[in-house]
Amino acid sequence: MSKTVISIDCMGGDYGPIVTVAGASLALKSDKDLEFLLFGDQALISQEVSKYPNLKDKVEIFHTDERVTADDKPAVALRKKRKSSMALAIQSVKEKRSQVVVSGGNTGALMAISTVLLRQLPGVDRPAICTSIPTERDTSVVLDLGANAECSAKNLVQFAIMGSLFAKYALGKENPTIGILNIGEEVAKGNDTVRLAYTKLKESKLADNFHGFVEGNDIPLGTVDVVVTDGFSGNIALKVLEGTAKFISKRFASTFKKSIRALLGGLLARSALMKMKSDLDPRNYNGGMLLGLNGVTVKSHGGTDEVGFKHAIMVSKRLVDANINEKISNDLQDFKS
Amino acid sequence: MSKTVISIDCMGGDYGPIVTVAGASLALKSDKDLEFLLFGDQALISQEVSKYPNLKDKVEIFHTDERVTADDKPAVALRKKRKSSMALAIQSVKEKRSQVVVSGGNTGALMAISTVLLRQLPGVDRPAICTSIPTERDTSVVLDLGANAECSAKNLVQFAIMGSLFAKYALGKENPTIGILNIGEEVAKGNDTVRLAYTKLKESKLADNFHGFVEGNDIPLGTVDVVVTDGFSGNIALKVLEGTAKFISKRFASTFKKSIRALLGGLLARSALMKMKSDLDPRNYNGGMLLGLNGVTVKSHGGTDEVGFKHAIMVSKRLVDANINEKISNDLQDFKS
Repeated sequence: MSKTVISIDCMGGDYGPIVTVAGASLALKSDKDLEFLLFGDQALISQEVSKYPNLKDKVEIFHTDERVTADDKPAVALRKKRKSSMALAIQSVKEKRSQVVVSGGNTGALMAISTVLLRQLPGVDRPAICTSIPTERDTSVVLDLGANAECSAKNLVQFAIMGSLFAKYALGKENPTIGILNIGEEVAKGNDTVRLAYTKLKESKLADNFHGFVEGNDIPLGTVDVVVTDGFSGNIALKVLEGTAKFISKRFASTFKKSIRALLGGLLARSALMKMKSDLDPRNYNGGMLLGLNGVTVKSHGGTDEVGFKHAIMVSKRLVDANINEKISNDLQDFKS
Repeated sequence: MSKTVISIDCMGGDYGPIVTVAGASLALKSDKDLEFLLFGDQALISQEVSKYPNLKDKVEIFHTDERVTADDKPAVALRKKRKSSMALAIQSVKEKRSQVVVSGGNTGALMAISTVLLRQLPGVDRPAICTSIPTERDTSVVLDLGANAECSAKNLVQFAIMGSLFAKYALGKENPTIGILNIGEEVAKGNDTVRLAYTKLKESKLADNFHGFVEGNDIPLGTVDVVVTDGFSGNIALKVLEGTAKFISKRFASTFKKSIRALLGGLLARSALMKMKSDLDPRNYNGGMLLGLNGVTVKSHGGTDEVGFKHAIMVSKRLVDANINEKISNDLQDFKS
């Protein structure tokens, strides 16, 4: 593999350079051909970089005092924070100084700044946010997660194309199956938008991989590899899923503190419980993508640690190697003809 | 309390009279003033009734061969199954021979037949399906769960009024708080419908109880008592929630089978785990309602057992005692003036 240059918004996420720089060092241990452009507070970043000898000669630091906070409104971040670590990192992708940007910052701001600086890929009407989640069967991709509160059938079809390519290249799924999220599996269910998208996909080149409508419970079941929906339902579905998983896990954890017997039981089962925790570890699913832009932007969870951030960097590397945007352009082209 | 007559669709649900009749017997043990009209297969129902001496003189059986199946399309059930146990049970409410109907049958068919036979309450534009769910804090009500794939702001406001009354009378919440489900908490988030509903509620008599927008994770957190949304997002949210809870619980259960140590641990923690299971037992949250109809229709989960079905019957009794439909009519009236 040839050298890959990755821009990192070092100030993004809950922990800033402590996590983002450590994540870069971990990623470099897995892949020696990575190089990083690091954007943010020079002093803080240098301090972290000095802790990891393997980063020497592999990073270039670009100082800025400005940063996008979790509370910044996207429109405000866009207008008033043109020199933020996030904006400068995205700008470096635009100027082809790097091949991909990874940020754990504010999703709305990341979407807004990326869209304005990078612009849509030709043929893409609306970019979408996707992520991968653990399921009973394996791993699935869900999109859109909130970039577009309202969507047309054409938007949903484009999401299906882009989501399939993400599943193929980020997750290694050869022929990913696709489902449209609906309130029932029957063809007559739902609203005009999902019914029209259903018809379009049935008549398309993706027909063989198109499973049809899926319901909310099909997401955790992993019935399909790619769950396509508008940004309103997708955002709600993902947040319900994460919130419920946390709720049930917390209940189990507190159950083992209810009595001495339960505590002993928990200790005995500890290694099995830790294995389960690691199987479902959200860090191993970290790294979503803003799909459909003229440049690759990877979104890390803000609350993740260096292991999770490393995972997002490795996802970004796979997407660059796969030349995902060229694939998206080709598939969209094919779809029309 | 005076006598309450409850119509039961004995053939509804996955197990028919075995569960529905047993549930009636359990309910009668809690409340001696209940009487039941039982609709369905005379032979099967009689056989079950004979097992429970306390049902003697408390039930009247109405025979029919027809039943609505889980696969029946609502429109088909409506047109072709006018003599089904479900339709006859609803008809008995319409004719005031009973005060409420309880069914564990096909939700779409129940909604369609109830709407046609009972008609909307004056002032209600669209009926809604609601249910209660366990949360980290307590119990919440979510509606609409799928009766209306598309909703106006006015529909959402009416759902807020009706859902609050359900929370008050079915769950005993004195001043239930209300949230509108959205993809962010800020006022500018989402689509025109939720923003307009937000403004209407802020300016209404419910303003003091209106929390504002809530997100998907606020449902399992229990941030508000009543979560208001359109039937598309509500259906997806509920199914994601149920599916994720099952997924995580199954993972925990299988974890305790991974090794001898884990198995022993699980046995030691058993009583604490059983307590947790019972706290979250879906049977204790069984009994949703089709809100806004001129007659009270209570929906039980199809897959529940007699304990769950009894719970749905007790919910129906509380709704009758509270005279919920009169309360809904009054509050809708108040709201206009």
